[in-house]
Amino acid sequence: MERLLTHINSPKDLKKLSLDKLPQLARELREFIIDIVATKEGHLGASLGVVELTIALHYVFDTPNDKLIWDVGHQAYGHKILTGRKEIFDTNRQLGGISGFPKRSESEYDDFGTGHSSTAISAILGMAMASKLKGEYSRQHIAVVGDASIASGMAFEGLNHLGVTDVNALIILNDNAIGIDPSVGALKKYLTNVKAGTAKDENIFECLNLNYSGPLDGHNVHELVQELERLKTLSGPKLLHIITTKGKGLKKAEENQVVYHAPGKFDATTGERLKKSEEIKPPKYQDVFGHTLVELAKKNKKIVGITPAMPTGSSLKFMMDELPKRAFDVGIAEQHAVTLAAGMATQGLVPFCNIYSTFLQRAYDQVIHDVALQNLPVIFCLDRAGLVGQDGPTHHGVFDIAYLRCIPNLIVFAPMNEMELRDIMYTAQLGLDHPITIRYPRGRGVTLDWRAKFEPIEIGTARCLKEGSKIAVLTIGHIGNQFAEVLKNLDSVGLIGHFDMRFVKPLAKNTLRSIFEKYDHIITIEDGCKTGGFGSAVLEFANEAKFSKPVKIFGVLDSFVEHGTIQETHKIAGMDFDAIQTYIKSTLTTCD
Amino acid sequence: MERLLTHINSPKDLKKLSLDKLPQLARELREFIIDIVATKEGHLGASLGVVELTIALHYVFDTPNDKLIWDVGHQAYGHKILTGRKEIFDTNRQLGGISGFPKRSESEYDDFGTGHSSTAISAILGMAMASKLKGEYSRQHIAVVGDASIASGMAFEGLNHLGVTDVNALIILNDNAIGIDPSVGALKKYLTNVKAGTAKDENIFECLNLNYSGPLDGHNVHELVQELERLKTLSGPKLLHIITTKGKGLKKAEENQVVYHAPGKFDATTGERLKKSEEIKPPKYQDVFGHTLVELAKKNKKIVGITPAMPTGSSLKFMMDELPKRAFDVGIAEQHAVTLAAGMATQGLVPFCNIYSTFLQRAYDQVIHDVALQNLPVIFCLDRAGLVGQDGPTHHGVFDIAYLRCIPNLIVFAPMNEMELRDIMYTAQLGLDHPITIRYPRGRGVTLDWRAKFEPIEIGTARCLKEGSKIAVLTIGHIGNQFAEVLKNLDSVGLIGHFDMRFVKPLAKNTLRSIFEKYDHIITIEDGCKTGGFGSAVLEFANEAKFSKPVKIFGVLDSFVEHGTIQETHKIAGMDFDAIQTYIKSTLTTCD
Repeated sequence: MERLLTHINSPKDLKKLSLDKLPQLARELREFIIDIVATKEGHLGASLGVVELTIALHYVFDTPNDKLIWDVGHQAYGHKILTGRKEIFDTNRQLGGISGFPKRSESEYDDFGTGHSSTAISAILGMAMASKLKGEYSRQHIAVVGDASIASGMAFEGLNHLGVTDVNALIILNDNAIGIDPSVGALKKYLTNVKAGTAKDENIFECLNLNYSGPLDGHNVHELVQELERLKTLSGPKLLHIITTKGKGLKKAEENQVVYHAPGKFDATTGERLKKSEEIKPPKYQDVFGHTLVELAKKNKKIVGITPAMPTGSSLKFMMDELPKRAFDVGIAEQHAVTLAAGMATQGLVPFCNIYSTFLQRAYDQVIHDVALQNLPVIFCLDRAGLVGQDGPTHHGVFDIAYLRCIPNLIVFAPMNEMELRDIMYTAQLGLDHPITIRYPRGRGVTLDWRAKFEPIEIGTARCLKEGSKIAVLTIGHIGNQFAEVLKNLDSVGLIGHFDMRFVKPLAKNTLRSIFEKYDHIITIEDGCKTGGFGSAVLEFANEAKFSKPVKIFGVLDSFVEHGTIQETHKIAGMDFDAIQTYIKSTLTTCD
Repeated sequence: MERLLTHINSPKDLKKLSLDKLPQLARELREFIIDIVATKEGHLGASLGVVELTIALHYVFDTPNDKLIWDVGHQAYGHKILTGRKEIFDTNRQLGGISGFPKRSESEYDDFGTGHSSTAISAILGMAMASKLKGEYSRQHIAVVGDASIASGMAFEGLNHLGVTDVNALIILNDNAIGIDPSVGALKKYLTNVKAGTAKDENIFECLNLNYSGPLDGHNVHELVQELERLKTLSGPKLLHIITTKGKGLKKAEENQVVYHAPGKFDATTGERLKKSEEIKPPKYQDVFGHTLVELAKKNKKIVGITPAMPTGSSLKFMMDELPKRAFDVGIAEQHAVTLAAGMATQGLVPFCNIYSTFLQRAYDQVIHDVALQNLPVIFCLDRAGLVGQDGPTHHGVFDIAYLRCIPNLIVFAPMNEMELRDIMYTAQLGLDHPITIRYPRGRGVTLDWRAKFEPIEIGTARCLKEGSKIAVLTIGHIGNQFAEVLKNLDSVGLIGHFDMRFVKPLAKNTLRSIFEKYDHIITIEDGCKTGGFGSAVLEFANEAKFSKPVKIFGVLDSFVEHGTIQETHKIAGMDFDAIQTYIKSTLTTCD
């Protein structure tokens, strides 16, 4: 049988198919996604779950004239394939290739870039209000939002506004009862009742003045088309509730939805994940966090753990499994997570609140207003700090040093390795006078034998890794390991000192003072934005202390960094080690 | 008749009263608040509305053992008066006096500091979960949240979590249908239906698994006591819906709730506001924004205006009155406001999104992820930037320069006066290649005749106000006027140059280069945090360009600044003009 997908290069082609061909197309689209993600990696489960919906939307609506937003966006693979990106889909998430998320600059069909959750309702409402103002009354506006995402505060704000407008906007609630990890919260419980038919008369979305319909089987493409056609004729704000299965069509992915959210390479037929090499590797930082927290929490009964919807990604799951009464997944609710931790801290608990660096941007005010202003000793662990690679600009955690170090009372720390992460966690739970943020990167550390005995770390102190005489290199965090490797290969290694600075705030002023007194040149290296970052803090120190030695700052340049491998993105960002090496060599030549 | 209030210095005293005395106490408490706020100024309407609730809560519950949080907190005057602060209540909002908001360091009865809205549910849940973990099962936990505040996303996140716990927490929804301005949104509409008895069977809070009761007359202290006693015996999460009138008990305040939110001085008997002196003054910056926006919007049909719940405070109200279809109050929903603006910008509209500097912290991620990353030309107007005076540390807008200037693509501008604010608004709506943030302070400008003809401003350029030869003073924003005044009184005025730098980003590099080439000393002055602020940007420039002239940075020191007059808080923050003058004099002495 000839493949239908072969002839579909745009929604125009799709519309030529008769309705009864759509289930076949769904099978082919699913296969296509599986085949490519199996070898190229990427997000899998979410896109498999919305294959029928994707087809139905482009079949019924007049995209790109009608506006369509995919919330979060990792479910948009089918959308990309049907809207002209089939041939380049195998470049997904690679440097120079297409993005793993919708992206305005990539296609006219990507009406709004997504990545972080719960933005789609606000954005589609903005578009719908614009259409109304422009007199374009027939334009349709659709946002697809998952049940984990719609439970986030921002989504509620959007719905609360939407319900008092008369715009043509359709919110499709894609209810699969899971985000990356299973959904949580009262709304999830309510939706479960709705699906079971045990909810009472009025619907929560109707309370918000939306025209609710559903729940509908999201894998029945005929029903979907029929319902979307009906909704297209109704004006005003609407919400369609559909039920889907994440990972639909690949048995393994349906059975193990968390793992198959982004499974890495796998066998396209069986779904079996390819075994990674047996080589023993240093641990992931997230696992060092997860295991260490359990170890500490077993001794210190005051410790609690909080994650906003990232139990697996943060490895807080280890504590949730071992000490379930003291570890909490609060859903996609960073704001709530931070202030919940603040409330707990007022009562003498020791909260470890784990949030990805990029997502802490969502709770910036709460860190300032609820934690730092009240000087509550909450311990923030910021995973995925720095450039994160293939997830790209929506997910790079590069601003945290700059946006955190201006907050009074707050300690800002970056461990260079597993032991420093463990030791600062140990130190923090002993009791600090201030809140602390501990930032560490995506990926693995550098130490096989990392479960060393805990040693407390004195706040505001640095480590001298190697003395030198001409150039002092100040690194902050894990990136110091990469510099240490570079250092080994430099000829003039004796001239170069290397310091693991550890604290962005308070700075290790004594060490800094002696560095500026002794060395002729200072270099700072950080995995974060140059503007306002750690290097800038060193400049402030030097200026205040009236040192005027040359300082060279390496960090992420002032632009958004695209997706690629972490190494590639470091290079693009202007902080690759070739550049650093070249700079050192030329400086030493000038010194001579 | 002897006053009951005279003998009440703590809730213990209150509990000695028989139930039938409480209405009299309510009258006295109301009178007490009115008498003092009439002469000392402060927030009025909100506290008058919860007099009966305040009495009932402290009568029924065992504060401070039971935990009580006042969301936002400007309704907590009665609470402060009943919990030992009656005698010092007349120091409210003054330097060294009590805070206008609950504050942990001020009293053991202030369980959680508030100021920004919608934090109370998360914080009380944190406390309640802590009590449960500690085995303190009998402790009660109460949060009072207004209807405007509960519609904010963060509150929803808290409720969504609360509904799946079994903690002893009671949320009291204080429904007066108004925040500072009248409440908006679908939830408000729904609550109106509930009160009218026209809502359907199931309640929206019951959908979220909360034990709902009400609506109850919040001014009937007997009913309140009775219901709170009943709720005290029920375990698990509960929500009590009460109806109150903002400004209750002062006719003028009930009739004009927006004005009497914080009416300034007034006659305690009649409620009549005292006329301000007839002296003609420069306009408030907010009014320059409001009038200019109307002026521009009448010509440019693409302009829309957005405020999250501050139509009066931001003066967007002028546009809402004149062009109601193009100006929107979206409620306390900063996150939504920003992404709504982003959505509108994708469709070619020109959104002016006005948010107080301190509240933009709530939408930091949306500025980065939805606006700057997509380089959408949204125009942010940040009112109340810098130190704001009596509202104190929760409301000072001192971090924006630091947290915004690290964001790629974003222009950061601070007008020195009314004309620069007008001109940058004019320039921005002509069409920029980037989003822009325009920060200006609370209070008045400096120009009577401010409605000058529009002149475009070239991005990244500064103004030389006065040439000098030794010291260059670089000011950013309105504070430059204060320096200009100081300059007039300096002996060595000829030696001092003064530059209105205007752009934090992109910096006016050409001007900076010539300044660093010509002058021996550089001074920067900003109404924002020193750490990572404008001065720091100048240091980055100088370092990059290899200038090594001494730079002295004046700005807000690295600690939270208490409440007081703006002048007092400037002094505390380390940026008063005496200090600047002294520094200049000593520098010139050294120069000689």
